[in-house]
Amino acid sequence: MSRERLVVIGGDAAGLSAASQARRLRPSEDLEIVVLEQGPEISYSACGIPYWIGGLVSDRDRLLARTPAEFAAKDITIRADTRAEGIDLAAGEVVAAGDERLGYDNLVVATGGRPLRPKVPGLDADGVYGVHRLADGADIRAAIAAGATRAVVLGGGYIGLEMAEVLQTRGLHVTVVLADPLPMAQLDDDMGERVCAAMCDMGIDVQTGQPVREIEVDADGSVRAVRTDTGSYLADLVVLGLGMGPEVALAREAGLQLGATGAIDVRQTQRSRSHPEVFAAGDCSQTLHRLTGEAIHVALGTHANKQGRVAGSVIGGRPARFAGVLGTAMTKVGDLEVARTGLCTTQAEDGGYDFRTELIESSTRAGYYPGASPIHVKLITERGSGVLLGAQVVGGPGSGKRIDVFATAIWAGMTAEELSGSDLSYAPPFSPTYDPVVVAARVASRVEHG
Amino acid sequence: MSRERLVVIGGDAAGLSAASQARRLRPSEDLEIVVLEQGPEISYSACGIPYWIGGLVSDRDRLLARTPAEFAAKDITIRADTRAEGIDLAAGEVVAAGDERLGYDNLVVATGGRPLRPKVPGLDADGVYGVHRLADGADIRAAIAAGATRAVVLGGGYIGLEMAEVLQTRGLHVTVVLADPLPMAQLDDDMGERVCAAMCDMGIDVQTGQPVREIEVDADGSVRAVRTDTGSYLADLVVLGLGMGPEVALAREAGLQLGATGAIDVRQTQRSRSHPEVFAAGDCSQTLHRLTGEAIHVALGTHANKQGRVAGSVIGGRPARFAGVLGTAMTKVGDLEVARTGLCTTQAEDGGYDFRTELIESSTRAGYYPGASPIHVKLITERGSGVLLGAQVVGGPGSGKRIDVFATAIWAGMTAEELSGSDLSYAPPFSPTYDPVVVAARVASRVEHG
Repeated sequence: MSRERLVVIGGDAAGLSAASQARRLRPSEDLEIVVLEQGPEISYSACGIPYWIGGLVSDRDRLLARTPAEFAAKDITIRADTRAEGIDLAAGEVVAAGDERLGYDNLVVATGGRPLRPKVPGLDADGVYGVHRLADGADIRAAIAAGATRAVVLGGGYIGLEMAEVLQTRGLHVTVVLADPLPMAQLDDDMGERVCAAMCDMGIDVQTGQPVREIEVDADGSVRAVRTDTGSYLADLVVLGLGMGPEVALAREAGLQLGATGAIDVRQTQRSRSHPEVFAAGDCSQTLHRLTGEAIHVALGTHANKQGRVAGSVIGGRPARFAGVLGTAMTKVGDLEVARTGLCTTQAEDGGYDFRTELIESSTRAGYYPGASPIHVKLITERGSGVLLGAQVVGGPGSGKRIDVFATAIWAGMTAEELSGSDLSYAPPFSPTYDPVVVAARVASRVEHG
Repeated sequence: MSRERLVVIGGDAAGLSAASQARRLRPSEDLEIVVLEQGPEISYSACGIPYWIGGLVSDRDRLLARTPAEFAAKDITIRADTRAEGIDLAAGEVVAAGDERLGYDNLVVATGGRPLRPKVPGLDADGVYGVHRLADGADIRAAIAAGATRAVVLGGGYIGLEMAEVLQTRGLHVTVVLADPLPMAQLDDDMGERVCAAMCDMGIDVQTGQPVREIEVDADGSVRAVRTDTGSYLADLVVLGLGMGPEVALAREAGLQLGATGAIDVRQTQRSRSHPEVFAAGDCSQTLHRLTGEAIHVALGTHANKQGRVAGSVIGGRPARFAGVLGTAMTKVGDLEVARTGLCTTQAEDGGYDFRTELIESSTRAGYYPGASPIHVKLITERGSGVLLGAQVVGGPGSGKRIDVFATAIWAGMTAEELSGSDLSYAPPFSPTYDPVVVAARVASRVEHG
């Protein structure tokens, strides 16, 4: 039995999950595993960077989940600060810095994502930051320490909201500038309005419907303001919160097939559709929407971990497939928790579904229990069948994680009526007698059944 | 069309839900609705009484959900302070106080539950209280105001735990005496031990494995101590936290069929098995365990509301059935949240299931996020199929409501593997990259699939 080699490009969630899972299934004498990471750190939580900036996480190293030593102990070779410069698919080799050629039997491309950048003048100015690598977090912290008082956040998605909140916590005046009419474009307007109102109540300056036209730059090359058609917003620092695109430069150049989303096109085994000995996982790859069956791109650590594990399983000889996503997501702004799963109204329309929407207001706890606060739940169900298609939740503490009940019900193909009958927990500190999930399901069911 | 009459015995969750639903479906000219309530109040939250005692709810009236006037506006006659003395099933009449005979076309028996009482001397002493009616709450509050400093709580179930906590909050020394080896008998021992440890850490004196032998009474007829085989525990007040049995004196005397649990035997329409023109709902009736198919008795406001609504629907001419329960339940003791659904190990054994158990420890939030605390999840799955049978959760804030995801998955018949693939929400303030639900499901799935 000749020893094979697995090369992994990218030392974060997807790549390391693939490496670990492959190692669990195949011992060192059977499989050599080499992970190339272009940056200095591996296994860091990009999702935690806003909280480090905000001071909720005091020590940068707390964002590092696992160390190179832990991988070394499993005989997984980690080569940090080693950039993959190219992939020679025909030869089965990765070209690393210094023209080193590293042959592989299997390759996992886990190059991750990159912050979306508007194509406007001035974007390369000093003081414009992504929220992607630990170095970004360090830069933003340094800018605050150096006296930045005004921040403009571009975009009102998850990263935008989180960054707006933590920068405000750090005492900066925060303006959020977005092209969309409301923050959280993945929500319906009537839910997004609640998020927008909460942000304004917190004192965040939200400027909607304004595509960025220019980053105005001082003579010294540092950012001075963000200009839209409507106004110019002073900024000592600008944060890119426009979402993450797939980082596919290497894959594209090599000739790996990309999908319509621009991300690497993979099967549910995470195998490249064009080159089955190559796998892709995480933010650089496409994924399957479980309801619509369409290929989408979602950058999220959870999926990256799971997809990496699937790739590692298949490479390890154990059948596995990634079961798809519902687009479940959650965040908070101040005390307002925001979550969604499945299809929103726009997606349901685009998908050609015949559907209903119902919006209910309930309470996070028994009305008489201290800390009870309003929760709004919006459900989207298929007309005729009552099958659950999507849910959105906006409300006080304890609201957001209720999305997981809907995500599970949608995953299982349940109808609103079935969910309304289910036996969810009740105790006054945690829910009204009927949990808001059940209230929403019942209303949707009643509308369906007359 | 002659006008029919619906009589409802019991003016709380089940009875009022039945009355309201029947009224929604049948107008006044078609159906007269009369609700008899023996006590002075209707529509009160028995579950809220501990929190009123604890001072978390300042005003007793906040525990009253709806007023007689609201029912009057819907032409539902509420007769409070009116005790039903008997039911003449042959004549179709309820006998009320003063020998008033009230004919019915349909009857809903919603007489509720009653606190279980150990058969020991002294139980009728002054200072022994249930936690059932608002008057009980007022009595316990009065006893505290009068200077009670030592409380003994009999039983370590939900009511026992809640009462122990609130009495301690009020400054009393609290001893919990239970016959079982651990509190929360609906949990497996390894989970109950965590609850027990948390109670002890709070300074609650937990005395396990000690059936009560006697309530020792002072010369003036007031309680002095609770005696077991092991010790005698001083008490100014004693709280019955042994659970709720069905209140079926009226039903039994009338000749309505009772089930093996001692509660009224009903079909899934909530119709009495022996007298189809009579319905029973709520704590006085049996219910169906969705997994085992067995009749069980569970006293819980959520089920009472749903069952009452089913009875009201059927009486109103709209087909309905109660879909059963999983025994989902939740509470907290201090900061420790405790929840369970489906079968515990003992129930799975008794049911003859071939099953596995897996216990995992995870974190309520991303490990680096402030307030992250341990969460333990135990799963019971069917060997061979991996179908989820039961789940138990014990952990810090944010743990408990995760039980609803398991309850939904069990309701839908999902396997651990299916649940482990599902798309649950992730954000650092609310969960690790893999939610503890997914971690538990994955471990159970991995064990099943090797």
